[in-house]
Amino acid sequence: MITLAVDCMGGDHGPAITLPACRRLLERHADVHLLLVGLPEALKGFVHERATVVPASEVVAMDDPVEVALRRKKDSSMRVAIQQVKDGRAQAVLSAGNTGALMAIARYLLKTLDGIDRPAIAYPMPNALGGSTTVLDLGANVDCTEQHLLEFAVMGSALDSVLKNKPQPTVGLLNIGSEAIKGNEVIKKAGELLRSAADAGDLNFIGNVEGNDIFKGTADIVVCDGFVGNVALKASEGLASMIAAFLKQEFSRNIFTKMAAVVAYPVLSAFKKRADYRRYNGAALLGLRGLVFKSHGSADPFAFEQALNRAYDAARNHLLERVQARIAHAAPLLTGASAVPVSAATPD
Amino acid sequence: MITLAVDCMGGDHGPAITLPACRRLLERHADVHLLLVGLPEALKGFVHERATVVPASEVVAMDDPVEVALRRKKDSSMRVAIQQVKDGRAQAVLSAGNTGALMAIARYLLKTLDGIDRPAIAYPMPNALGGSTTVLDLGANVDCTEQHLLEFAVMGSALDSVLKNKPQPTVGLLNIGSEAIKGNEVIKKAGELLRSAADAGDLNFIGNVEGNDIFKGTADIVVCDGFVGNVALKASEGLASMIAAFLKQEFSRNIFTKMAAVVAYPVLSAFKKRADYRRYNGAALLGLRGLVFKSHGSADPFAFEQALNRAYDAARNHLLERVQARIAHAAPLLTGASAVPVSAATPD
Repeated sequence: MITLAVDCMGGDHGPAITLPACRRLLERHADVHLLLVGLPEALKGFVHERATVVPASEVVAMDDPVEVALRRKKDSSMRVAIQQVKDGRAQAVLSAGNTGALMAIARYLLKTLDGIDRPAIAYPMPNALGGSTTVLDLGANVDCTEQHLLEFAVMGSALDSVLKNKPQPTVGLLNIGSEAIKGNEVIKKAGELLRSAADAGDLNFIGNVEGNDIFKGTADIVVCDGFVGNVALKASEGLASMIAAFLKQEFSRNIFTKMAAVVAYPVLSAFKKRADYRRYNGAALLGLRGLVFKSHGSADPFAFEQALNRAYDAARNHLLERVQARIAHAAPLLTGASAVPVSAATPD
Repeated sequence: MITLAVDCMGGDHGPAITLPACRRLLERHADVHLLLVGLPEALKGFVHERATVVPASEVVAMDDPVEVALRRKKDSSMRVAIQQVKDGRAQAVLSAGNTGALMAIARYLLKTLDGIDRPAIAYPMPNALGGSTTVLDLGANVDCTEQHLLEFAVMGSALDSVLKNKPQPTVGLLNIGSEAIKGNEVIKKAGELLRSAADAGDLNFIGNVEGNDIFKGTADIVVCDGFVGNVALKASEGLASMIAAFLKQEFSRNIFTKMAAVVAYPVLSAFKKRADYRRYNGAALLGLRGLVFKSHGSADPFAFEQALNRAYDAARNHLLERVQARIAHAAPLLTGASAVPVSAATPD
């Protein structure tokens, strides 16, 4: 039996979204048990033989500062949900709440794995091959050393080997193409470090990739610092929304375009399904002593269910042990390099 | 009369693209004179009373390292074209060649403006409001101080005031949203500096923006370092290509979807036109003692013509003098802060 803890209060809409998704998951997988964490009155309508309500008296708001979530709301649904993993009552936890708060509380309660200095957020972005490219970090770390980028590569490889069932997923290092200034010092050093890891058999490193390679699917995993990754993710979301809005506006312009929309409906639905971000919902917070997943805050029940599925697959396939094993194997490189942080090593 | 120097050999296809675009520009604007720079045999078929061929014996290849372009190919079409601006024979220059080489040669020949430490590449990205958001830097500078970001904001404001005819264009600072780690030290200091500039009347600063705001059109100008900007641009291009390919594939799947495509053709064309990146072709290299514009290397004649139009508008509206005036006005802030580079000021 796989037990997942769900922060039912997180996200823009809370139980109205999370509960229907939980019910679907329970219906689809007979080996799932859910710990539904939240305000008892908000969850009281949910009855299922494999679901248990775990009460929490507070809710972390989407705009709560991290300090408030961490220090003041000690009985929040988010924190109580993570505590289930900490106490061994659940194998993984999912929340659609405030990312910063989730990372901070998870890090505080669960601690990081040996050999990992910085946990990272790994996000699956759809690619032209019909699959997804795992990009990390997506915002947990704004200033990264080459050592951190190596950690991300090792953790991302473990994640993909489990969730995509690829023993040796390919890793690309996000860089820029202009000849004048190919990357900064950290990126150059990270490239060398990733090559060493590849030589040692710890990674399937394919070299530098550029922003467009995320969507081409050039590498299974794309590694970057959290500032860059967050901007790339948000810019992509913004562009996708803009294109969708343009398409909708053009098809609803007048009676003729509306008729065209009716004729084209099956095609447009197929297109929409293919370009649907929701299918890939569910970021992994990697590097912690426990499995923590994050759903997009604006997820609908379908999207939240996808994130639940990812948490379920990760737990069932022993992601945590796989990450630990990979880190242990790469330990000589991880610890060797960490002795010389780039900020001290490069005079700039 | 506005005289523009055109590197006719640059880009993926050279004269086959650049010459038709030049002819269109000459037909549209009676006050334009063009200096067509390139291999004489490649340009000999082009005859127009307001066009003069300026011979160059070499061509910078798209994959030439900067050193080769700068030191070995001293009679390249790119360099000779920039020299026209340097010598006062042209008011602006346009090339679709290698960005790194263009920036390096332009910087070497033209030098930077007083008060500007780093030239930047400003690129117009389409937004949901039907206009474009000017993003800079797009790859000229990978490590920026807050001072550089202020320079970009001042130069971008001058550019938009000319090309969008807005006296006080709004400026946003690109940041990430996660509460845990809102930006790094440079971003925080840049925010303070931009606020000071706004208080002094030098900028219309609206605060932090996120990646999706580029496409929402939240600010006229979005300021970021070149690494982040380059990744955001390339990721967006990659996503747009993927979505376009998905749409095309769905409409060409079988006879029924192809019929739907015929019915929907007018709508799809209108959509394509609206989402067309080519309309916004033409990046400005700002901060130099001369107007330099860069077309996308894969531009077609339509796209190259848009870039020519931007160079023409910039020259006609005295962009160089406007940039200089804005920099002179903001000089106390620009020089005051440059005395304390952030790398030295923050112990980190």
